[in-house]
Formats: sequence, structure tokens, C-alpha cells
Amino acid sequence: MKVVAEIFSQGEEVVSGQTVDSNAAWLSQHLRDIGFVIKRHTAVGDDLSDLTALIEEIANRADCCICTGGLGPTVDDLTAEAVGLAASQPLILDAQALQQIEAYYLHRQRPMPPANRKQAYFPQHALRIDNPVGTAPGFALQIKRCWFVFLPGVPSEMKAMFATVREQLLARFNLQPDKLVSLRSIGIGESAIQQCLEDLILPDDVQLGFRATVDEVQTKLLFPADFPQAELNACVQQTASLIGDCVFAIDGLAAGQGGDLLTVIDQLMTAKNYRLAVLETASSGLLAAKCQGKDWLETVLIAKDSLCAAQQLAVQVNDEELTAHAECLASELKQQQNTDFALVQLYSGTQIDYQRKDKTIVLYNCLKTDAGVFHRQHTLGGGAQTKQNQAALLSLDILRRYLQNTCL
Amino acid sequence: MKVVAEIFSQGEEVVSGQTVDSNAAWLSQHLRDIGFVIKRHTAVGDDLSDLTALIEEIANRADCCICTGGLGPTVDDLTAEAVGLAASQPLILDAQALQQIEAYYLHRQRPMPPANRKQAYFPQHALRIDNPVGTAPGFALQIKRCWFVFLPGVPSEMKAMFATVREQLLARFNLQPDKLVSLRSIGIGESAIQQCLEDLILPDDVQLGFRATVDEVQTKLLFPADFPQAELNACVQQTASLIGDCVFAIDGLAAGQGGDLLTVIDQLMTAKNYRLAVLETASSGLLAAKCQGKDWLETVLIAKDSLCAAQQLAVQVNDEELTAHAECLASELKQQQNTDFALVQLYSGTQIDYQRKDKTIVLYNCLKTDAGVFHRQHTLGGGAQTKQNQAALLSLDILRRYLQNTCL
Repeated sequence: MKVVAEIFSQGEEVVSGQTVDSNAAWLSQHLRDIGFVIKRHTAVGDDLSDLTALIEEIANRADCCICTGGLGPTVDDLTAEAVGLAASQPLILDAQALQQIEAYYLHRQRPMPPANRKQAYFPQHALRIDNPVGTAPGFALQIKRCWFVFLPGVPSEMKAMFATVREQLLARFNLQPDKLVSLRSIGIGESAIQQCLEDLILPDDVQLGFRATVDEVQTKLLFPADFPQAELNACVQQTASLIGDCVFAIDGLAAGQGGDLLTVIDQLMTAKNYRLAVLETASSGLLAAKCQGKDWLETVLIAKDSLCAAQQLAVQVNDEELTAHAECLASELKQQQNTDFALVQLYSGTQIDYQRKDKTIVLYNCLKTDAGVFHRQHTLGGGAQTKQNQAALLSLDILRRYLQNTCL
Repeated sequence: MKVVAEIFSQGEEVVSGQTVDSNAAWLSQHLRDIGFVIKRHTAVGDDLSDLTALIEEIANRADCCICTGGLGPTVDDLTAEAVGLAASQPLILDAQALQQIEAYYLHRQRPMPPANRKQAYFPQHALRIDNPVGTAPGFALQIKRCWFVFLPGVPSEMKAMFATVREQLLARFNLQPDKLVSLRSIGIGESAIQQCLEDLILPDDVQLGFRATVDEVQTKLLFPADFPQAELNACVQQTASLIGDCVFAIDGLAAGQGGDLLTVIDQLMTAKNYRLAVLETASSGLLAAKCQGKDWLETVLIAKDSLCAAQQLAVQVNDEELTAHAECLASELKQQQNTDFALVQLYSGTQIDYQRKDKTIVLYNCLKTDAGVFHRQHTLGGGAQTKQNQAALLSLDILRRYLQNTCL
């Protein structure tokens, strides 16, 4: 039995195109992961009759609908009112919701604006969903065939609240999720991975898919709910070994094997109590920003280019070849800071190349450890933000490779 | 007369969440710019009956609909078939479309796969829309109330073809675009802005709206096409002065007045050839990362806390009060680096407070200039990423305030 879900996004900013609706994709993925079949996404603006009409439509054709947006304190936030109309329920003050909103402001030592009181009104018989990170609580209720869940449109709040929603949905619906395993990789593109997997033969009922984000490429294997675990493990291992050491984590296989690049590095650094010093150029602070709160990052220096980098470490570098230059700086940095590792990032290419989408720069990473010196080199393309992000991640990846003992 | 448009995206990858649907936002913005009122976005997967049903729905309620996706050569590309069913028109081979597809392959010296022949079949009476960059031509036709335009889902092809579509729409519809003005602010929440505007009386035909992002809050004024410019300016000025000096830019009024916080600062710093030195703690490199490629940022130091900050500048700070501490560091930094401005960011609160969503930290910013020393202080809540981002922006904002001569 397929359980049909829809996604509904409310907001003039979505419908007018000012905001790209990333909530819809995020929610679809997460609903699909737990076994829903997603049939439709719809976005409408802040218009009461449009909202009411849409809720009534969905109430007749879906089993579950997650709605985002329109829960704010302002006059154009109309979701609760529209739901009340569609469900023929009056809006009732939820005393606990009001208390939570008041506490939010008290905590920040600011008076609660009177407008926020509105956020504590829900249609009668609705289930309140607490918001641990913002002022707007959510709510859920059944209208005809469909269980509606209303969440704020701010992605961080929506995501924080989805943890609770997920548990409620698992309890409410009889879902048989496929098993999804994601092989997470960095430093290799989607089409290169596809080429690696040319000779891979998967059972007919296993689906292969790909998803590229700004940070990584995920190779996804979707197995039926009753697929034997041993055979699943074999499929995953075969796929991982074909992609090779660009795979830094596998989600959905065993606990502790998954996570993003920083989570993987954090676990390895913390377990061994290692300390790291970094000199970044191309990523201009973004590497440090990604490591916010990580104790193992002892020191970060930021320099505009290799010359400024040498000045910061007060070393004379005669070698104009960047690999040798990076190695000299890494040795000096490790010695000055007395850390387990020193990571130096340099690049060749002008600021103009950096800013232009049609130009590339070459990134040089050097990791100095007590066991030796390791180098990696990458050509980076794309806009300035893409280059900056790739530089930060690929510098961190040389550390991940060392810590995971993969071939450097 | 409002001309109502909708956006319709077809594809399993959109509805399953593998792809974030950026086409819908792009098309909405462009349709709105020429005067359409966008009422809805809908996405459905590759299912013939879902597609046909949706086209029939839209045919009854919109004047125009732009559809993307489903025009490819594979079996799951069903748009033309669904349109044929909804419009009760047979699919007919368009000889010129076939010639174009054949020419595309000829040009690349590859044989045309037989599957691509399908892309030259359109519902009878449809208008062909040539594709200058790919294989799939588009088409347009009237079904009941609605003029439907079908374009490929590949963003680069869709965008290249929209130039033609735009001209056709301008000729077909009598459009009068509204004027949108956005007041962009930082350091003030959406509901606080609403309180500031409590006494604002706008003409009945002017719409007020708000949009909060992680970086800023935008207060939006939407004026009818024929709204007198002098009156428009007066409305905007009145709104801006009620919100006060948290407004850093106004989009849609005059050229050069708009842009995000960094664009505003960049223009002001570059115009006067100023140089800045920064010491960041709470934002851990994110301030520097946001300024990637900005020449006016001469030096960035990153420190974990105020103690490390003092060590980095090799100063003895006896004062435990952070405002005084920050001032001492800013003076030292300015002197050491010999820049026009030195900006020092400190914060109180532990790393645990920083990481916890339910705890706050207090941010201290100090800007040292030749004209004096300026302080600002903010309480930051939310998760670690939110605190980090707010810290970076609010530190930059003290510089913006100085440069714009707003009261500090």
C-alpha cells in the first residue's frame, strides 16, 4: 500500500520567485526515506482564498501533507486562518504555545511584540508541535483523508522541528521504507563516478541514483524493504570500491560510518586527541568557519597569497614552485605551533581568474605530520563562491585521507 | 486587470527532492517583472494521469502557464502526450523540428538516436519554440482559458528559450508590471519592524510585506504600475525612517542604492580607498570568508576567545570588561597594521553556550577609526551556525554604520 504525501509551500516570496523553495526538496527526500510516495509540490502566495482552496484540494487526494510557511507574526501570515476555514474549526489560544513564545523573548531579554500573540492560535483539536529554535510553533491535524503538518518556512526551524514530526509520522502511518544507502564522496564529479560504475551489475530491484551538492557527490543505492542484508552489504562494498578513496563516508549502512566530511574528521581528530594548525589562502577563512567550535583546530592563519603567507610565518621562501613552497611553510607552521599536523593551502591563478566562472585556479595542499609530508593538487572551476568552498573542503580532505589511511 | 500565471514543473527528480526546483523561481521572477501575477507553482512526477489532470486544472484557472521538463527523448518524458490528451489534439510530426534535431546531431558529428524523433511531435495547432542550445524544441498552445508554454527542464536551455517566449507573451497579453521596493535591514527582527510601522498609513493600493532570511529582514512595498513616482518616493522614505538606521539598502528605488550588506560596504570602502584590519572570534573566519576577493580587507586574525586575541596582538589586557578589552585590542590592531579602520569582535559566553540553541552569547564589536572609537553590543541566540553568521554580519554592520554616517 502506497502512502501518498504532498508538499505545500506558502509564501509570496516563493511564488514570486524571490526564494528558491529548497524546503520542498528537503522534505520530499526525508519523507521518501521513511517510505512515503511523494506525488506533488505546490506553492501559493499569501492569499486566504488560494490557501483555503489548496488545503481543500489536498485534503481529498493525499494521505499526508507537510506545509511550510505562513506561521509568522505578521498580517500576511495566514496559514492558521486558512486551515481553520478549510477544517471548519475556530482558532483557539494554546496557552502553552503562548508561554513558549513569551519565554523565547524573555530569554533574549526583549519584550514580546504584541503581534507574536497571534502565533499561539491554532485550529481547535490541532496537535501543537514545539519549535525549539524560533518563535513560531507548528501544528498538525486531520482534514478529510489527509494528515496535515504545518511548519515554519525558515529552513533551520523547519528542519529542527521535523525530528519530532518524523517520529509522529512513523507512529501514525504503516510505512515500509526502502533502504537507502548513500556513498558520500569528494574530489570526483558525478559523470566520473558514473564512468567508474560502468561495469557494476546491480540486482533488478536495486535503484542507482546520484545527487550532487555544492559540498559533495552522493551515490545512492535504493534497496527494497525486504532486501537481504548480506547481499546489500556486498552491493555497497562493490560500489564503494569502484568509486575508490574519494568516498569519505557511507550513510545508511552502519552507525558511525556516515556523516559529512567535517563530522568524519571531527570523530577521527577527537578520538586521537590530535591538534591541527592551518594556513589558508584560497578559502579565505571559510575552512576555519566550517570548523567553528572544534577544539582540535588550534590555530588558523589567513593570507591573501603565498607571499603574504610566507610573511606571516616570517620565513624566506626562495622556491617559486608552489608544492615546495607549501612544504616549507607547513614545516615552519608545525614547528611554530607545535601541533600534530600543519595544513597549508596555496593556489596559483590571479584574483581575476578566481572571480571568473570561465577561469580555473590550481589548489596546492600540503599536510605535514610526524609521519611525513603529503601533497595534493586540484584544479578548481566555477564561480568565486564555488572555488572558495571547494578549496576549504579539499584542504580538509587531505587531512581526512591521512586519518583514514587512504592512499594519499 | 491582473493577468494570472502559474508555473508547472515536471519530473520525478523534482518531486522526489533530488533536484531543487530553481526553474520555478527564475521563471516567476521574470514573469512578474513583465507584469504577471504568479498564483501557483506545482510540481508533479512522470505519471501520465497526474500530468493530464494538472494541465486540465490549470487550463481552467490561469491565463498563462509556463511548464518545464518532460520534453526529453526517453520513455518517462510524457509532457507532449499529456498535453495532447488534455487539449484533445493528436500529436503531429513537425518536420522543421525534426530537421533541427537532426542538425543538432549532425553538427556534433554523432548519429541521431532514434528515440529523439519523438521530440519533434507536438499537439496539433501548437506553436513551435526553437531551442538554440539543445535538442528538445518547446511548444505553446491555448487550452481553455490558459496559454501554455512548454520548455525543457534543463535550466540553460529553458533560459535561452525564454527570450523568445518573453516577446511572445508581451505581444499576447496586456501587462502592467507593479513596482517593488525592498528596504533591507539588519539587527532588527520582523516583528520589531512591524511595531515600528504600526503608525504607518499607506495608500490602499500599496501592499506591505516582509521577508526574513538568515542574513537580513526585507520590508517590501509593492506599488501599482501607475503609482506616481513622487508619492512612491515619499512612502519609501517614510517607511525607511520609521525602521531607522537598521536599514542598510533600498532595492528598486534608484540605481546604486540597493544590494546586500557586503555590496553596500564594498562600494563605500572602494570609493574612499579605505583599508580594514579585523580580529574575529565568534564568527571564526566567516567574516573573512564573506569578504573573499575584497582588496580593502588587509588583514584578518582569528582567535578562539578574548585571551587568545590578546596573545595574538601581544598585548597585556588587564581589563576583564569586554568593551574596554575590545577597545584596547582595536587600538593596538590599528596601530600594528596601519589601516584606516580596525574592527575587533569579542564575545562573552562559553563554547557550550555557543553550541546550544537555548543559550545566548553577547557580542561586543569595537571599531577604531581616526575619528574615534565606536562600540556596539548584541545578544545572539539560535544554533551555532546562526550565531556565527549573525556575528559576522553584525561586526560588518558597525563598519557600514560608520561609513553611512548613521548614528552609532
